[in-house]
Amino acid sequence: MSDAIAIRHAAAQDFARKAGDLAQRYFDAFDRLTIDAKGHQDFVSEADRNVEALLREAITGAFPDDAILGEEDSPKPGTSGFTWVLDPIDGTTNFIHGIPGWTVVIALVQNGECVAGVIHDAVHDEMHHAIRGKGAFCNDRPIRVLSGRSLQNGSLGVGYSGRVAETGIINLVRLVVERGGIFYRNGSGALSLALVASGRLLGYVEEHMNAWDCLAGMLLVTEAGGRVEIPDPATVLDQGCRVITATAELYDEVLALSEQAFG
Amino acid sequence: MSDAIAIRHAAAQDFARKAGDLAQRYFDAFDRLTIDAKGHQDFVSEADRNVEALLREAITGAFPDDAILGEEDSPKPGTSGFTWVLDPIDGTTNFIHGIPGWTVVIALVQNGECVAGVIHDAVHDEMHHAIRGKGAFCNDRPIRVLSGRSLQNGSLGVGYSGRVAETGIINLVRLVVERGGIFYRNGSGALSLALVASGRLLGYVEEHMNAWDCLAGMLLVTEAGGRVEIPDPATVLDQGCRVITATAELYDEVLALSEQAFG
Repeated sequence: MSDAIAIRHAAAQDFARKAGDLAQRYFDAFDRLTIDAKGHQDFVSEADRNVEALLREAITGAFPDDAILGEEDSPKPGTSGFTWVLDPIDGTTNFIHGIPGWTVVIALVQNGECVAGVIHDAVHDEMHHAIRGKGAFCNDRPIRVLSGRSLQNGSLGVGYSGRVAETGIINLVRLVVERGGIFYRNGSGALSLALVASGRLLGYVEEHMNAWDCLAGMLLVTEAGGRVEIPDPATVLDQGCRVITATAELYDEVLALSEQAFG
Repeated sequence: MSDAIAIRHAAAQDFARKAGDLAQRYFDAFDRLTIDAKGHQDFVSEADRNVEALLREAITGAFPDDAILGEEDSPKPGTSGFTWVLDPIDGTTNFIHGIPGWTVVIALVQNGECVAGVIHDAVHDEMHHAIRGKGAFCNDRPIRVLSGRSLQNGSLGVGYSGRVAETGIINLVRLVVERGGIFYRNGSGALSLALVASGRLLGYVEEHMNAWDCLAGMLLVTEAGGRVEIPDPATVLDQGCRVITATAELYDEVLALSEQAFG
């Protein structure tokens, strides 16, 4: 681990906490939000835009040579080799409906690989964070994926967006339930990945996620002892990737089910 | 509304709060325990039993002539015509895994009909409660189901248990997604019903629920302006029922989808 990563990992938690505080103020006032629709099952809010602006300003102030890629605003180029990949509010549908299941997500990427990640659940005061090779944590506590579990003994998180055909999620749910398992869909992919890392879900599968939704969570799962499908570093920032994650023991089974579901 | 119901409705909130406090102490202690899967089960069983015992003692002390039906212990007969129907911890899979999605549920039943109900989400300090004919509330705030929404503009809660064949939930997920909607499964049926009543989900469907899981929530949805399939008062306490609930505008569509899914 270089100091450059450690410094940014610490800063990312600080930035995420401030962003979470701002988002929480919007969340508590959500009845007063003005919301426009942005396509199917997808919403953008004033909160999203302003939380991302807060993050961008903090990052640019502290690390002016770093690049930024965020869900809401256009990419900012950099020269340091580091890219901050931001989802100001993952779980927007929950957020605008007043459901406490949303997070602030920051991934630090170097050469297409996520080297540090933060998923901050402000409502429940849970800061999930990791540096590659250094383990995963919730606040100050080390976290681990579940162990000694079959697919029938726990819940498998699943996600879906209109970016992919509907057959994939339909097949996946069918295959999991037919096998005696059960799916869990809480509307926040990043939060679900954090729940895998912290030993609360068996795994998480989604046919396509954007880089800002998934990179931090995939690092968390890896550092917590789980397994993930490694995305192509050359394309993941632009195109996102398929996300298949599970406990070490269940990964091969979950991968096989996902391959069958997504065809 | 009779005074007898109003008194019990107020008492139910008081009892649910005390029960929630006890359950929360177990929930918070979860992190400090290193327990295997079997140990998890024992842990939740102890919490479930002790929370139900607290409720039974409180109810019996205040209303000795009332009957009690709970998930954990054997039924207590009564002579007053009132039956307290208890689920000490709904969402035990969440509870056992440290996921903040579980509730204390109390339904007050008279002649097979739920006349008052409480769903207490202790983690988020949300006491959902209703008296038949008097509206639904979250803490002191009146709540309403969503309005002006299509099935494509929001999330439909779904539930599943091993008590029914797996084909029902598989079909339901397929039908909802094919229609451009999206399902939501958080592992607590009672909490999901409260989320419908408070305008956070479009509806909630589960092929079979026990009386202690569903009666309070169905009353909440009704009192919040939604629609529910009315269970048979002669059999619901013993056998449970199918649960189909939605906003007033979406109920017919959700009922038709459910009929098609469950065959």
